[in-house]
Amino acid sequence: MKLATLRNGAPDGQLAVVSKDLKRFTQASAIAPTLQSALDQWDAVLPKLQTLSAQLNSGDIAGKPFDASMAMAPLPRAFQWIDASAYMSHLERVRSASGSKDEELQAERPIMYQGGSDTLLAAHDDVVVPSDDLAVDFEAEMAVILGPVAMGSGIEHTQDAVRLITICNDVSLRRLVADDLQGGFGFFHAKPSSSFGPVVATPDEFGEAWDGKRLGGKLQSRVNGVMLGQPRTEVDMLFNYPQLIAEAARTRSLGAGTILGSGTVANTHDEVLPIGTDGIGFSCIVEARTAEKQKTGKAVTQFLRAGDEVAIQFVAVDGSTPLGEIKQTIQIAD
Amino acid sequence: MKLATLRNGAPDGQLAVVSKDLKRFTQASAIAPTLQSALDQWDAVLPKLQTLSAQLNSGDIAGKPFDASMAMAPLPRAFQWIDASAYMSHLERVRSASGSKDEELQAERPIMYQGGSDTLLAAHDDVVVPSDDLAVDFEAEMAVILGPVAMGSGIEHTQDAVRLITICNDVSLRRLVADDLQGGFGFFHAKPSSSFGPVVATPDEFGEAWDGKRLGGKLQSRVNGVMLGQPRTEVDMLFNYPQLIAEAARTRSLGAGTILGSGTVANTHDEVLPIGTDGIGFSCIVEARTAEKQKTGKAVTQFLRAGDEVAIQFVAVDGSTPLGEIKQTIQIAD
Repeated sequence: MKLATLRNGAPDGQLAVVSKDLKRFTQASAIAPTLQSALDQWDAVLPKLQTLSAQLNSGDIAGKPFDASMAMAPLPRAFQWIDASAYMSHLERVRSASGSKDEELQAERPIMYQGGSDTLLAAHDDVVVPSDDLAVDFEAEMAVILGPVAMGSGIEHTQDAVRLITICNDVSLRRLVADDLQGGFGFFHAKPSSSFGPVVATPDEFGEAWDGKRLGGKLQSRVNGVMLGQPRTEVDMLFNYPQLIAEAARTRSLGAGTILGSGTVANTHDEVLPIGTDGIGFSCIVEARTAEKQKTGKAVTQFLRAGDEVAIQFVAVDGSTPLGEIKQTIQIAD
Repeated sequence: MKLATLRNGAPDGQLAVVSKDLKRFTQASAIAPTLQSALDQWDAVLPKLQTLSAQLNSGDIAGKPFDASMAMAPLPRAFQWIDASAYMSHLERVRSASGSKDEELQAERPIMYQGGSDTLLAAHDDVVVPSDDLAVDFEAEMAVILGPVAMGSGIEHTQDAVRLITICNDVSLRRLVADDLQGGFGFFHAKPSSSFGPVVATPDEFGEAWDGKRLGGKLQSRVNGVMLGQPRTEVDMLFNYPQLIAEAARTRSLGAGTILGSGTVANTHDEVLPIGTDGIGFSCIVEARTAEKQKTGKAVTQFLRAGDEVAIQFVAVDGSTPLGEIKQTIQIAD
């Protein structure tokens, strides 16, 4: 089942069921007005939403044409956005780039940060930044949306917490990272509003590619139409989703509708840009720059500037793109 | 005007207007079902809520008896919880205690972190922690709840963003702080769910004590009935609310209902515990321990253990306690 949040002028939008091929939708607000309200009473509404989805997919309900630009972020504002860092290659490259004092990798326990979640961006929203002189970067990630998780839940319980899956662009202002970290309180200004895919899908949509722990496929990132990366999402993911969720719930319970990001998807390799058609590449620019610097002595790939376009899509094993596309243009605030 | 969120079984509770003396309430859910919904359409609902408040305070509406234990957190789950650190004495003492590598104080720009906001605690909820061997501490703070703030708003615009004021207990697990900071992503496990006062009040409730920038009064903290601190809230507050809000909005807009904490209220002095009746003391235990260690060579005050009770109240210039009391007992999770 695929769901979207459609613009209706209200801050949380309205819930819609989207067809498997992302071409049609039908409103679901009679079942639950918003995605958050559906997540609040998931067991009660799931069968009704599934029935509606089956009717839409079979053609019993004609529906209306779906266009990704109609969608807000699945949760336009969420009560919790936790971004983890499950792919070690990303951490290695980024830390090398920023000259972090703490070079020791967190290979024993995943690290994660609280992101701001009151103004999440839609898949086709512009990314508005205060200036493009801040080393504007994207980070292509997978994200899961959770049901409630009790404090101290072990991984035997957290696997069932994954309700929905989507893609994410964790916009990052690299020039502000050092400043944020120097303050000692963690990321803040360097991590403005993140963006999410036009639809969310239940795990069963992915068949065997979702094994309850990881999702198999590729996450492709393009900048101005040129492929920057297409790492596999199930490869080099040191911590899987049940482990990430259990870690997030160590000292607190997680409310229904918590969004958990995988961290920038990254595979280990020593390529530089441009990558060939079967290259792996990178899910953010700073990794490409680090690899370039290490291999050739000079970082060539530029950070994003006003007018640049970033596109991100998840490509399933069969070549389909079941979660649609994030496609955003960088803009400077007035 | 004072508002509260009453328990009704729903995750966001229901909105009520509370009398000035905190003794009576009347439901306001016909005007706005929840506090968040009121904040979403503040200009439209404010006059109606004010009329209801005037009727309740005059006795035209009898209302029902209000008890702080009926209240959930004002926003039981919020889309944004930002905790700043506006009082430098707190930072100085805490950093000295934790042996932070970064001793340089952020005197030029306030530092702040994103807190988890999906499971905020009520004023009289137990504070449930995974273990009381984690150096469990409280932090007594003031907090403001905001209307929408555009990215890059200057302090000339952010002053008007303060809609409501309340008190806060930013529960901290000191033993996990170093671990969180070592990861390089900032606070996470060390800062579980924060707690908020039983009511919120509009700034006009405080008369001249609210000058649009700071709120004058004392914030009293007691542990097991013994006064630990009563620093003045307007003294030694290096960054005022409009400055904190502008800083929070540097690279993002802030949604309606953003909660912004002042940071642990602290005044400069060299007392140790116990403080005399007119002493200033501390709004958290780690500060008391640092002061003790510096003055006597030994930290005496103990961190919180299961069964310990923390009580926090804001005392106005006239001796009244217009925001009620946070009163919580530490409990260990099952």
